[in-house]
Amino acid sequence: MEFKEILRELVERVDGARAAILMGYDGIAIDEYRKEGVDTDIQLIGIEYSSVLKEMKRASEILEAGEVAEVSIVTGKGMVVVRGVTDEYFIMVSLTVEGNLGKARYLMKTASPKLKELL
Amino acid sequence: MEFKEILRELVERVDGARAAILMGYDGIAIDEYRKEGVDTDIQLIGIEYSSVLKEMKRASEILEAGEVAEVSIVTGKGMVVVRGVTDEYFIMVSLTVEGNLGKARYLMKTASPKLKELL
Repeated sequence: MEFKEILRELVERVDGARAAILMGYDGIAIDEYRKEGVDTDIQLIGIEYSSVLKEMKRASEILEAGEVAEVSIVTGKGMVVVRGVTDEYFIMVSLTVEGNLGKARYLMKTASPKLKELL
Repeated sequence: MEFKEILRELVERVDGARAAILMGYDGIAIDEYRKEGVDTDIQLIGIEYSSVLKEMKRASEILEAGEVAEVSIVTGKGMVVVRGVTDEYFIMVSLTVEGNLGKARYLMKTASPKLKELL
């Protein structure tokens, strides 16, 4: 299975999911999938949040809270779920405000080791 | 109802919840509640993540994603849910890795307007 196929499944199987991306913490994307008719700029979202994620990793280290596995952000206009795949890469899914956050979290948890194998 | 009573309810009604805090984005706490026998330093967690939250607000502004309403962070050793109460204050709940994240999110959503009224 290819990167894009895994990202496609994440988007198509979750109600309200708009787009998914596999990206490095340096802001460089490996692959992305966008639902038809959706104009979400998932690359831009990934780039903006990747620096926040790095800050979060740093805070968790200071707190000795262990590795950051997952972060969910709910804003006025949508939701974003991020899950670490390796030390260098993460996946991110963008959803509408009514999207199924729980299912996105669940499917990303199962997709993460599959992506790790491919990297 | 007082601040501490609302925080106490958040902790006692959620499986796996350890502590809750009402804090300013400047890192200064108004009140906190810790489950008996728990040694979680919720003040320190709040202070460390408050700077990350400010970064996240900034990223969301750039993305025109609307106000950051809620952030959940899952690490190797636990979970943290943060919800904005006003522009200046947020509530944060710390949970064990097996904690009920969904219930914490739900109760924080209902507690937020109550806390806002008291502020």
